[in-house]
Amino acid sequence: MNIEEIKSQLAQEIASYDFGRNPEELYEPIRYLMKLSGKRLRPLLTLLGYTLYKDDWQKALKPAIAVEVFHNFTLMHDDIMDKAPLRRGQPTVHEKWNGNIAILSGDVMLVKAYDLLLHAPAQYLPLIIKSFNQCAAEVCEGQQLDMNFELRSSVLEAEYLEMIRLKTAVLLGFALELGGILAGAEAASLALLRSFGQNIGIGFQLKDDYLDVYGDAAKFGKQVGGDIIANKKTYLLIEALERAEGVLKEELHHWISLEEFDKVEKVAAVKRIYTQLDIPALCQQKIHQYFAQGFTDLDNLPLDEGKKLFLRNFTAQIIHREK
Amino acid sequence: MNIEEIKSQLAQEIASYDFGRNPEELYEPIRYLMKLSGKRLRPLLTLLGYTLYKDDWQKALKPAIAVEVFHNFTLMHDDIMDKAPLRRGQPTVHEKWNGNIAILSGDVMLVKAYDLLLHAPAQYLPLIIKSFNQCAAEVCEGQQLDMNFELRSSVLEAEYLEMIRLKTAVLLGFALELGGILAGAEAASLALLRSFGQNIGIGFQLKDDYLDVYGDAAKFGKQVGGDIIANKKTYLLIEALERAEGVLKEELHHWISLEEFDKVEKVAAVKRIYTQLDIPALCQQKIHQYFAQGFTDLDNLPLDEGKKLFLRNFTAQIIHREK
Repeated sequence: MNIEEIKSQLAQEIASYDFGRNPEELYEPIRYLMKLSGKRLRPLLTLLGYTLYKDDWQKALKPAIAVEVFHNFTLMHDDIMDKAPLRRGQPTVHEKWNGNIAILSGDVMLVKAYDLLLHAPAQYLPLIIKSFNQCAAEVCEGQQLDMNFELRSSVLEAEYLEMIRLKTAVLLGFALELGGILAGAEAASLALLRSFGQNIGIGFQLKDDYLDVYGDAAKFGKQVGGDIIANKKTYLLIEALERAEGVLKEELHHWISLEEFDKVEKVAAVKRIYTQLDIPALCQQKIHQYFAQGFTDLDNLPLDEGKKLFLRNFTAQIIHREK
Repeated sequence: MNIEEIKSQLAQEIASYDFGRNPEELYEPIRYLMKLSGKRLRPLLTLLGYTLYKDDWQKALKPAIAVEVFHNFTLMHDDIMDKAPLRRGQPTVHEKWNGNIAILSGDVMLVKAYDLLLHAPAQYLPLIIKSFNQCAAEVCEGQQLDMNFELRSSVLEAEYLEMIRLKTAVLLGFALELGGILAGAEAASLALLRSFGQNIGIGFQLKDDYLDVYGDAAKFGKQVGGDIIANKKTYLLIEALERAEGVLKEELHHWISLEEFDKVEKVAAVKRIYTQLDIPALCQQKIHQYFAQGFTDLDNLPLDEGKKLFLRNFTAQIIHREK
């Protein structure tokens, strides 16, 4: 088994899948967004979850793609809601076409995700659809909470962690669980796979928050400090708002409330406050905690360590990315 | 078996179904739209399709509701795209809340439709999901074609009939087919049920077009001639544009191109043109043709006539509505 071969067949399978043709306005945006690519992390997790138990991962390819299609559906609709002009450096669907087309193409994408899941063996279908439905509803709940938080003056740490669990982590959990279901794993193992994915997913999002401030601009590939400039309620800001007192509190609120400011100056000032409050260390500790919990889930899977090595190494590798 | 009892249990089942609670902004719009009600025609067709074969229709209630939830999902998203302020006399979801909430609540509704389908016996699930997916994608295709047609100067009759088949009729076809699947009907009968529903559905839409111009304002419950005022490309206008020649053609194009006009005068003028072109009779003939084809499908179902009476009478009754 070779990860490059899995990646290559996955890319080929996605590129050759027939989402539909007519009307063109409905299906072209799907092909467009799917081609913008990304790392295909989620379907890879499904296939690696499958290979914990079985070697014929080719059989899991189409259901694995469902996870990627669903992920891209959420991107298409989220981009409308966030009024995002760009996605992976290219115009978003609602910008390139229009908002109505982005709504409707997204709707069809969600349907196509279910179509791909139908390639699973019939015996597993009830469980797969049930688990996918829960995941899909939770992702929507997470997105709604995220929008709600934007309008609130304060958000608790626990609320934030639950929001990112729903919005981004449950899909990684489902991706891994799906691999397990397709390979015939039993319920206790499926729960561990799901938990592994969710913990790693929360860790990823926290690391995203961290890297937005402390990442290497060149490697990270986007403006460092963008979240600070936009007052985005990340883990860092939420913790800082909870912990700051006295002068630091005043200073933090000052920078948040400013409508006009020098971007470089604001980023530097808020970073200084974060440092004084020990936020970077706190955040790294939290990231480590979730990643460690994820690997404990993996440890607890009743399988030979040799079987886990592939998934363990792959996860470790994407965890240590600096972009 | 009593249609009033079916209706009443259906209404009760819908009212008591738990779509979800948290966050409130996501789930409240679902309950709001589902409560605005309507005739529950589609799930009724599922249940009546089921009773062709079996008497214990209660077992089909939850999957039947999936069809109603899906229908309301399409309304929620279509209303955003059409910028519709009202739905059944009440503010649309995107007006009462906002566009983002209407997108996201709609997304969850689609997921909840699949959740309801999961109440079907596992043996039928692959076929149900496959058929539902096709129907759902086709409904989106129909909506996209409808939006495309608005931007075109002319639309052919065949294109229009295909658009309304996709946008509205395939869901009636699926509703009936679902009833048949749940009751264990075989493939040939399922095809007839689907065809019956689609033919009746196309007939309904054409009748809607007809009644918008020739209906009794009091019974129809909305402004007569609204489609004429808005230059909506209905069956009537499409036929008139295809048939008009010479002075009539000029006159029709004159009224269509006017930006400012007296509404009553325009409606009267276009109706006069329709009459001269024999459009009302042509439309009624087409309506009759589709309804007749639908009943032929029902005739061809290999079942005792007595078994069909209930569905036949119910359909005949809704066909002869004048609103």
